[in-house]
Amino acid sequence: MDQTQICPRFEKGIQIASKRWACLIIYQLLEGPKRFCAMETALNISGRLLSERLKELETEGIVKRIVYPETPVRIEYSLTQKGLAFESILSAIQTWSQTWIEPDSI
Amino acid sequence: MDQTQICPRFEKGIQIASKRWACLIIYQLLEGPKRFCAMETALNISGRLLSERLKELETEGIVKRIVYPETPVRIEYSLTQKGLAFESILSAIQTWSQTWIEPDSI
Repeated sequence: MDQTQICPRFEKGIQIASKRWACLIIYQLLEGPKRFCAMETALNISGRLLSERLKELETEGIVKRIVYPETPVRIEYSLTQKGLAFESILSAIQTWSQTWIEPDSI
Repeated sequence: MDQTQICPRFEKGIQIASKRWACLIIYQLLEGPKRFCAMETALNISGRLLSERLKELETEGIVKRIVYPETPVRIEYSLTQKGLAFESILSAIQTWSQTWIEPDSI
């Protein structure tokens, strides 16, 4: 890695990964499409914050929101190809954590 | 990946990676030991924030602070083995960014 100049794409990637909750939301969605309430419960996150993060991830092209015209309407969130590819980053964090995080430091 | 239960180590890893500036500080130090002022300039970060982050990364065992008893005293920051191993996470972010971040989205 060449640190003298940070590539704007890399910096943007760091910015996305560093956004609080983003990694955990993507991790949840790697399981498959999810409804808002299910994510809210699983992550123990406020609705306002989850909604904000989902909108940001949608803008980044990582999450897609699908509206099923049923009664009542059903809305599901899932990962785009870009979002699915993010798994490689989460895997790297997982591998590093398993090797380097001491259980008694948590 | 099994999403039903998040491993506390993995969650802690995400928490470290998600801390603003942490990735960029580690990225800088992958180049080699650095002095506080050099990092402050390279990252364009406030001294207060950089000092806070470095202390946190030191507590996590990622960064080490070495004091050289010269006149004037010289203090350098470098990565521990745990910090050096973090490169795998930054590499994953870099690879993902190069593939998925559109230059016109930055």
